[in-house]
Amino acid sequence: MEPSSRSRDASPAGTLVAAVLPAGGSGERLGGATPKQFCAVQGRPLVSYTVRAMERISWISDIIVVVSPENIETMKSITEKYGHERVTVVKGGVTRHRSIFNGLKVFAGSELANHLLQKPEVVIIHDAVRPFVEEDILAKVVMAAKEYGAAGAIRPLVSTVIASDADGCLDHSLERARYRASEMPQAFLFDVIYKAYQQCTDYDLDYGTECLHLALKYCETNAKLVEGPADLWKVTYKRDLYAAESIVKDNLSQQVCVITDVKEAVAQVGFLFHESLKRQIKVEAVSLPLSKNDSHLQNIFSGQYYNFVCVNDKKYALEETQKLVDMLEKRNTPLLDPVVLILVQLDISEKVSFSIGMEEITGIKKFAREVKKKNILVYGLLMQYKDHLLLQETVNSAAALIMALIKDRNPELIGQLLVANLLKYSTNTGKSLLLEANIPTTELLKQIMKY
Amino acid sequence: MEPSSRSRDASPAGTLVAAVLPAGGSGERLGGATPKQFCAVQGRPLVSYTVRAMERISWISDIIVVVSPENIETMKSITEKYGHERVTVVKGGVTRHRSIFNGLKVFAGSELANHLLQKPEVVIIHDAVRPFVEEDILAKVVMAAKEYGAAGAIRPLVSTVIASDADGCLDHSLERARYRASEMPQAFLFDVIYKAYQQCTDYDLDYGTECLHLALKYCETNAKLVEGPADLWKVTYKRDLYAAESIVKDNLSQQVCVITDVKEAVAQVGFLFHESLKRQIKVEAVSLPLSKNDSHLQNIFSGQYYNFVCVNDKKYALEETQKLVDMLEKRNTPLLDPVVLILVQLDISEKVSFSIGMEEITGIKKFAREVKKKNILVYGLLMQYKDHLLLQETVNSAAALIMALIKDRNPELIGQLLVANLLKYSTNTGKSLLLEANIPTTELLKQIMKY
Repeated sequence: MEPSSRSRDASPAGTLVAAVLPAGGSGERLGGATPKQFCAVQGRPLVSYTVRAMERISWISDIIVVVSPENIETMKSITEKYGHERVTVVKGGVTRHRSIFNGLKVFAGSELANHLLQKPEVVIIHDAVRPFVEEDILAKVVMAAKEYGAAGAIRPLVSTVIASDADGCLDHSLERARYRASEMPQAFLFDVIYKAYQQCTDYDLDYGTECLHLALKYCETNAKLVEGPADLWKVTYKRDLYAAESIVKDNLSQQVCVITDVKEAVAQVGFLFHESLKRQIKVEAVSLPLSKNDSHLQNIFSGQYYNFVCVNDKKYALEETQKLVDMLEKRNTPLLDPVVLILVQLDISEKVSFSIGMEEITGIKKFAREVKKKNILVYGLLMQYKDHLLLQETVNSAAALIMALIKDRNPELIGQLLVANLLKYSTNTGKSLLLEANIPTTELLKQIMKY
Repeated sequence: MEPSSRSRDASPAGTLVAAVLPAGGSGERLGGATPKQFCAVQGRPLVSYTVRAMERISWISDIIVVVSPENIETMKSITEKYGHERVTVVKGGVTRHRSIFNGLKVFAGSELANHLLQKPEVVIIHDAVRPFVEEDILAKVVMAAKEYGAAGAIRPLVSTVIASDADGCLDHSLERARYRASEMPQAFLFDVIYKAYQQCTDYDLDYGTECLHLALKYCETNAKLVEGPADLWKVTYKRDLYAAESIVKDNLSQQVCVITDVKEAVAQVGFLFHESLKRQIKVEAVSLPLSKNDSHLQNIFSGQYYNFVCVNDKKYALEETQKLVDMLEKRNTPLLDPVVLILVQLDISEKVSFSIGMEEITGIKKFAREVKKKNILVYGLLMQYKDHLLLQETVNSAAALIMALIKDRNPELIGQLLVANLLKYSTNTGKSLLLEANIPTTELLKQIMKY
């Protein structure tokens, strides 16, 4: 293997890397008053997702967010609220290029910065409205920038690009395969891009948008183009905000932790939930006495779970749940996204209850409204069954409700008490599915064996 | 005004217009097995939305959907299920251009078509995966095609377009303002585009994608370019499906019909719902005796509402609701999208109930599961209050739940019974908000005046 190709595979650890995120856009194309970088996605401003994507990566030192003067206080309060410790907020210029230039000046010593940050070897430039950027593509553009002086992510064109004549008619169309869309992130040797901006004409600063173009024009640096993933797209229109919201919900719905009491009947249901849910989602199931302080439980709650199912046979078990909430609050990182906490109450006595008390309903509601302030969404789920043979079926029906609650994360529905039961039981005729459906005994035995 | 500019404003009525929708794509970029035109959005395949967008327009006669041979049966069954009466399904070729050519041949007489359709003056070509196409842009491209021979929708470029050199480095970037993205719909004089396809080389048929290019190359027709709206975008990636789903939900959540019994207390709540909901959504409120056959009610149900709130003081009122469901079934057009039907049960007696019976819960569930088969999503909502002065507050809390149910249209939550009540009442202490909050009497009087 040649040394040059080996260096391309290496990690950028050891290289001093900083990032500049221009966030000065006005969001005209969204048709709303709020610039898109500040639009809420699951309650959190879009720019916070992008910042977080950078902060997760240990080898990026400083993150400069450049905003227009009127949004400096907004950005500072976002930085504080969501604990973005590596961020420096910088005042932007009237155009994109002038804003990026301002961001770079912080590293070069200038009256714009309150304190001088250490000049990085490589600087990443990334739009604040491209929240789903992964370490892989960032590492690729940084390594390519070290080798070539400049690098940028590209994507295939989705539409054919055409040029129009003076009358607004087709002049010619470009051959799609020969061209690419230039996306972000891009990365540059700091000295290359800073020199380009210093030598840049006012015309380029005012009307240009493409950093790769400046590096080529002023430093004769032909940027390396790196094929990036589809998720790099730029949130531009309202539909892009919808898509971002769905992707965030999707990402938050990847895993769940099922916590059950140690009582045998409850623990068994926890096991069945595990089996049923794991077809759709990654599940960790633990059976623990919730009443005592448990370090394993504390570990779970300090981890990265954003969905919890607590199974209990007590009515509400709100006291135990309060303990879980306390543990969540002790997490080192702030709860950036809403946590879903589903309280499953089993009604497994021989004599199933025939009513739900309003006090019960109101109890969960009050609790839910209280912990909502801590960014925790609580829902109640009553699971009722008489016949042990139908437990699996009831669990499946409850699991479907759990998945719906986790995927939707609907803040309006907090504190509601949903019910999972089998309709076969409701008629009070005493008939069981066994009798109704006439299932052969061998089939039933197989079902029992699965427990 | 010159005659030529006047003709551009005219409606295409009087011109024979047909549409060809290429739907042969494999959906590789979605990363799924199902081609994107057949992916379900709110349970209905994407292509059905696009077809419906065309069918709504009276001046489009025939709609040709071109699909790959293995999907002909799928497409035919979609056509049948959703009542797309103007659609002819045609077998596609191995490339996009060959598929469109096959679609056009139906009008020109060929062995491919079972029956010869009348040759249109103008033919629209539109992707099956661009579902949100409106009459305005279709009329514009058709009128422009009549005048110029060809026309196509364009959009500004979102990203800078660049060309790479042989080493995968930047060669040059295009000046963004000079270029446009070529989108759909496009329209052509039938004779122009058909001649272009007939004279087209195999190379163009196999490797080209742009119809405007063929019209220019083979018929020297410079297409008129028409600026289109952002909604014309092509569903390409998974995130685009997310966006489409959200847009469809949004469109379905624009208006609601509130139906109340004629009893005074119930009708009053219906009025308050109207006031509360109309801040977020268009509302029609009617007060009617549900027990008798009413032609006004029948009219409402034959209309375009996709959301109903039925307010009653009876427990469940499932019998009355069944009548509404029957009326929905009698609609002339099939229920293309899920209808939301929220059963609001008022508990306004002096002595508010302190429990909900399981029978009650199971009753709604059974009913909901039954009518789900008819594409109707039923949810229960219990509204409880003792103090008339707090009615408005309780209505607002119920309205928030109603909006959440309408916007989410979550099929997993059907048949659940949600509860809207004021937590102040739950403690059984008999205290009212009046006593608790110590509101000055004048303020209270103002609130009462609002009723």
